[in-house]
Amino acid sequence: MEIPVNKSILAANEDIAAANRHFLHQRGIYAVNLISSPGAGKTTLLERTVATLGPEIPLAVIEGDIETSLDADRVRRHGAPAVQINTAGNCHLDARMVREGLAQLDLDGVKLVLIENVGNLICPAGFDLGEHEKVVLVSVTEGEDKPPKYPHIFLESAAMIINKIDLLPYCDCDLAKLKEGALRINPRLRVFEVSCRTGEGLEKWYAWLRQQVAQSEPAEAGG
Amino acid sequence: MEIPVNKSILAANEDIAAANRHFLHQRGIYAVNLISSPGAGKTTLLERTVATLGPEIPLAVIEGDIETSLDADRVRRHGAPAVQINTAGNCHLDARMVREGLAQLDLDGVKLVLIENVGNLICPAGFDLGEHEKVVLVSVTEGEDKPPKYPHIFLESAAMIINKIDLLPYCDCDLAKLKEGALRINPRLRVFEVSCRTGEGLEKWYAWLRQQVAQSEPAEAGG
Repeated sequence: MEIPVNKSILAANEDIAAANRHFLHQRGIYAVNLISSPGAGKTTLLERTVATLGPEIPLAVIEGDIETSLDADRVRRHGAPAVQINTAGNCHLDARMVREGLAQLDLDGVKLVLIENVGNLICPAGFDLGEHEKVVLVSVTEGEDKPPKYPHIFLESAAMIINKIDLLPYCDCDLAKLKEGALRINPRLRVFEVSCRTGEGLEKWYAWLRQQVAQSEPAEAGG
Repeated sequence: MEIPVNKSILAANEDIAAANRHFLHQRGIYAVNLISSPGAGKTTLLERTVATLGPEIPLAVIEGDIETSLDADRVRRHGAPAVQINTAGNCHLDARMVREGLAQLDLDGVKLVLIENVGNLICPAGFDLGEHEKVVLVSVTEGEDKPPKYPHIFLESAAMIINKIDLLPYCDCDLAKLKEGALRINPRLRVFEVSCRTGEGLEKWYAWLRQQVAQSEPAEAGG
């Protein structure tokens, strides 16, 4: 009984995700679904990204958490419109929640929507939200063995951000092995090595996002 | 439809968990279900615990992961019998998997079974495996806000191990706030501050485990 029910839940999610994708496409909005373990640094990455890209690219943030509005509060402090979705025990965002989040945001002129999923390296990988790309964030403090142990999200993502590289001297993470493990699962994965704390390496992430947003803009009339 | 199905899956799990608990109780075995985010240090804690307590307390390990047998291999190197359960995509261990794991172990004389759950701070909290206690492990690199954001596991656990305290000087974790947040959710939570890398603080964890095992021994005849 379990499998058909899961299938029907997933099928319903796919329908709403497709509608979200259409909604975003019509408005020329590029959307990223950011996924990581709890505490890998998603919110700090968003704070930095909002502070740097906000002045040049109109953007908005959807924050997913089981409980609290701590993350939306943090992001709003950097001047971005943000809605907090509390999943009330649910271990991942789904497309319906994101549809509600989009409806609460003033998207007039917005070109980029950053979605922070619930801190979970597993379940969010299976739920399409209608985003353009999933981006997985890992921290060097988690060690180098996460890709083979949690392969699904590395396969589903367009980019992997390796965070907390400022802590490399103090932990036993083999960075080369971490990258190799992820690229073995998904050779097309774009890899960024950053410290959201010091800002190191973030320019390449911003450049990539700028490019993704530019490619999502509606073609000019006659273009 | 979702809710009744979840209820029936959970009810079936509860039945098997009760049988596991009975099985362990009859043999005087104490079992811990260790839960954390990916990369918080569960396996390193188990390696240390097996190396220290193994010579005095006969023990065995059940390793849960979505993929790979990396963790069971690590634990076996320290001389403990270990079985690896691969959940094949599932985001948590369930009681049926643990029943199969127990059946594969030689439990003759064993007094302590250490179960390492899949790296996930959310879903494992809802699945009883038949263990005596859940123990939640958090790393200071994850920041101090995990208890209010993921309250369920802190409520369900008997103890919280705060790991990687050797990294405190290099990250922005407010240790007092982390403990306060967890104890507000569960005032009876036993708290250990440790570094599984340096060994700092682990003696108190070992002492607690020794005590828990001693309390689970069957009463002597006439005692």
